[in-house]
Amino acid sequence: MLRKRNKPDITIHHLGVSQSDRVVWLMEELGLPYKLKWHNRSPEGLMPPDYLDLHPAATAPVIQDGDRTLTESAVILEYICHKYADGKLTVGPDQPNYYDYLYWMHFHNSILGLFFVSGALRMQSSPDTERMRGFMKKREDRYFNYLNQRLGEVPYLAGDAFTCADVLLMFDLTFLAGQGLSSVDALANIKAYVARIAQRPAYIKAMQIAGPAAKAPAA
Amino acid sequence: MLRKRNKPDITIHHLGVSQSDRVVWLMEELGLPYKLKWHNRSPEGLMPPDYLDLHPAATAPVIQDGDRTLTESAVILEYICHKYADGKLTVGPDQPNYYDYLYWMHFHNSILGLFFVSGALRMQSSPDTERMRGFMKKREDRYFNYLNQRLGEVPYLAGDAFTCADVLLMFDLTFLAGQGLSSVDALANIKAYVARIAQRPAYIKAMQIAGPAAKAPAA
Repeated sequence: MLRKRNKPDITIHHLGVSQSDRVVWLMEELGLPYKLKWHNRSPEGLMPPDYLDLHPAATAPVIQDGDRTLTESAVILEYICHKYADGKLTVGPDQPNYYDYLYWMHFHNSILGLFFVSGALRMQSSPDTERMRGFMKKREDRYFNYLNQRLGEVPYLAGDAFTCADVLLMFDLTFLAGQGLSSVDALANIKAYVARIAQRPAYIKAMQIAGPAAKAPAA
Repeated sequence: MLRKRNKPDITIHHLGVSQSDRVVWLMEELGLPYKLKWHNRSPEGLMPPDYLDLHPAATAPVIQDGDRTLTESAVILEYICHKYADGKLTVGPDQPNYYDYLYWMHFHNSILGLFFVSGALRMQSSPDTERMRGFMKKREDRYFNYLNQRLGEVPYLAGDAFTCADVLLMFDLTFLAGQGLSSVDALANIKAYVARIAQRPAYIKAMQIAGPAAKAPAA
């Protein structure tokens, strides 16, 4: 008997240099078909009007699957894995490493927050901003030292197997960390992890298609 | 035959005025026993040394359950509900509103990020900070307008039923929003939702025990 399978009808709305590259990477990991629609930022780095119209929150990434529109990386990754890959690359509450998986699935947004605060604080210097800068640097160091410790104990964030948590965090470690978060450079386990993940064929292909250095195809 | 049930041995490490009050609230919602250990901030608002020693990331909240230590609100809430309440107040991949639930479980960290950035930008004024302030205000407005729209359609964040997503967001809407995020005041659906949630007996009890206005019990 033929088993009926859902067929994805996914369009990834790719905002040039943005977190949507990780959705492309996931599709390549899973070998699933997708359409990629480029949206170029304005010269000031802002989202174009057609991108703003996609979702009320107007955050990147956004995907459409048929008439369903989703945003927020962690949600999109879980959606695709559950709907089209029988939960592959996810971890559920019945597995012992579920809470590790969840922790690292949320870690990304903490790093993103630090990245924006760090950008805001670099714009100015006063006793208040220096005090806050010190406070945020301590927090950043604790986060990255903890990540480095974790990657000395297990090969992937959630444990023995590659999961969505790894897909989620790679953009932060390669792109965001280089934009002003200084803590990563001296941490050997994080560096080795990034180098290892960067060799995955699906990652290499996805970065060629939609990574920070990729260009929109000619119209 | 008696069914063996896990018995929680949970200590909530409560950093005075912090997000750990939502863990107290959850335990009251579920009627589960817990111990509360107060950690008072320094006069400058910093975490005391014994709190920093609890977890490498040194974020609040932190709980201990036997010899297990957990941090990150969303993880702690899921852990308690799955381990001690058969998944009550959570939503799983087999339910149609799973992706709504996930979205709002992650929304909280976006608001927390905005809160920190907004604090950093209020410290000084320059053309750069004004430009970024405008950018962040737009993002803030979009987030809160989307939340307000959602709460005009459904009674709770994940849909028809009260879930961990509601427990997660209340601190943001009551405490963080009042510390410089201005967008909430004029949004009727959010205001009505907050007023309604604030009437839950478990919430009222938890805020008396560990809310922003609560005091550590005399030693």
